Amino acid sequence: MDILKQRIASEGQILPGNIIKVDSFLNHKIDVTLLNTIGQAFYERFKDLKIDKILTIEASGIAIAVITAQYFNVPVIFAKKGEAKAMLDQVYATKIHSYTKDTTVQINIAQAYLLKDEQILILDDFLAHGEAVNGLIDLISQAKAKIAGIGIVIEKGFQDGGSSLRAQGHRLESLVIIDGFDETGFNFRE
Amino acid sequence: MDILKQRIASEGQILPGNIIKVDSFLNHKIDVTLLNTIGQAFYERFKDLKIDKILTIEASGIAIAVITAQYFNVPVIFAKKGEAKAMLDQVYATKIHSYTKDTTVQINIAQAYLLKDEQILILDDFLAHGEAVNGLIDLISQAKAKIAGIGIVIEKGFQDGGSSLRAQGHRLESLVIIDGFDETGFNFRE
Repeated sequence: MDILKQRIASEGQILPGNIIKVDSFLNHKIDVTLLNTIGQAFYERFKDLKIDKILTIEASGIAIAVITAQYFNVPVIFAKKGEAKAMLDQVYATKIHSYTKDTTVQINIAQAYLLKDEQILILDDFLAHGEAVNGLIDLISQAKAKIAGIGIVIEKGFQDGGSSLRAQGHRLESLVIIDGFDETGFNFRE
Repeated sequence: MDILKQRIASEGQILPGNIIKVDSFLNHKIDVTLLNTIGQAFYERFKDLKIDKILTIEASGIAIAVITAQYFNVPVIFAKKGEAKAMLDQVYATKIHSYTKDTTVQINIAQAYLLKDEQILILDDFLAHGEAVNGLIDLISQAKAKIAGIGIVIEKGFQDGGSSLRAQGHRLESLVIIDGFDETGFNFRE
């Protein structure tokens, strides 16, 4: 996805800990025109599948999920972090570790919104070690729903989340894969 | 907005502490068709204004902001809660209290994304005591940007956030105002 590579090349920043910061267009300030192009790209890659719902995780994933859901015409559910007073339902829960924030948090989904045998498309902004995606897969498994596919905006190809998910047989589509970077810039996979 | 009143009447739940729960279509599972109708409604109400950016707060506000931003063709910024390692920029920060979660959290916006004299439309899902909106107003003031308007999906008219913001002269548009509820249902303002 050339337009996304160009934005990463021109605006992406590298922070300590191999964090790739794209706050200027994807996950703090959001370029909604680009986001729509991302949503259309996910639709092109998964439109052959029957999708019942899109599942993501707060917060950055929500923008990507709702824009993409317009093309599939399906609802979105987002896993919530921590425990909210307003969420007194029976939930599916699991724990995930964030390497970016160096914290482990519980994520939850109300059981009523993830049903047995539903075909679920997982979407998220980044894939690195795969902690968030594996947490969502855990929730889907608890619900006895099905993983139709996994769509990622930016995969860090130099970390093991993507290769591990592909080895497990998941249909993983990353719009851009970054295999590394140095002082001259990002090394995108062709 | 009749379609929204109908959904609240049929699916909304009251939790202790006057919490109105609309998790089944607005802030956990999201009905993206309804969300588009909400985005169009905000556009109709604010299209006479010059809007440079839409500002909201994670997490539930993000869905509303990005869908609405498509109609205005402007970027979204969302205030982040807490402090993330990936956010090393200079930030505008303030503290807000969540009555729903009974916690006080810091919210932040990178200074680079909120500029002097920009016309900002604030959007959020709920307005009760006005803590979140007043926090966003504080961030806008720190940036010397301008508050063009405030759009709320569901205002709790029996709490003081809305009347206080109107008394301050803000242009506040709430798609639905709930003035109270009892065992027979919700009392919507006409």
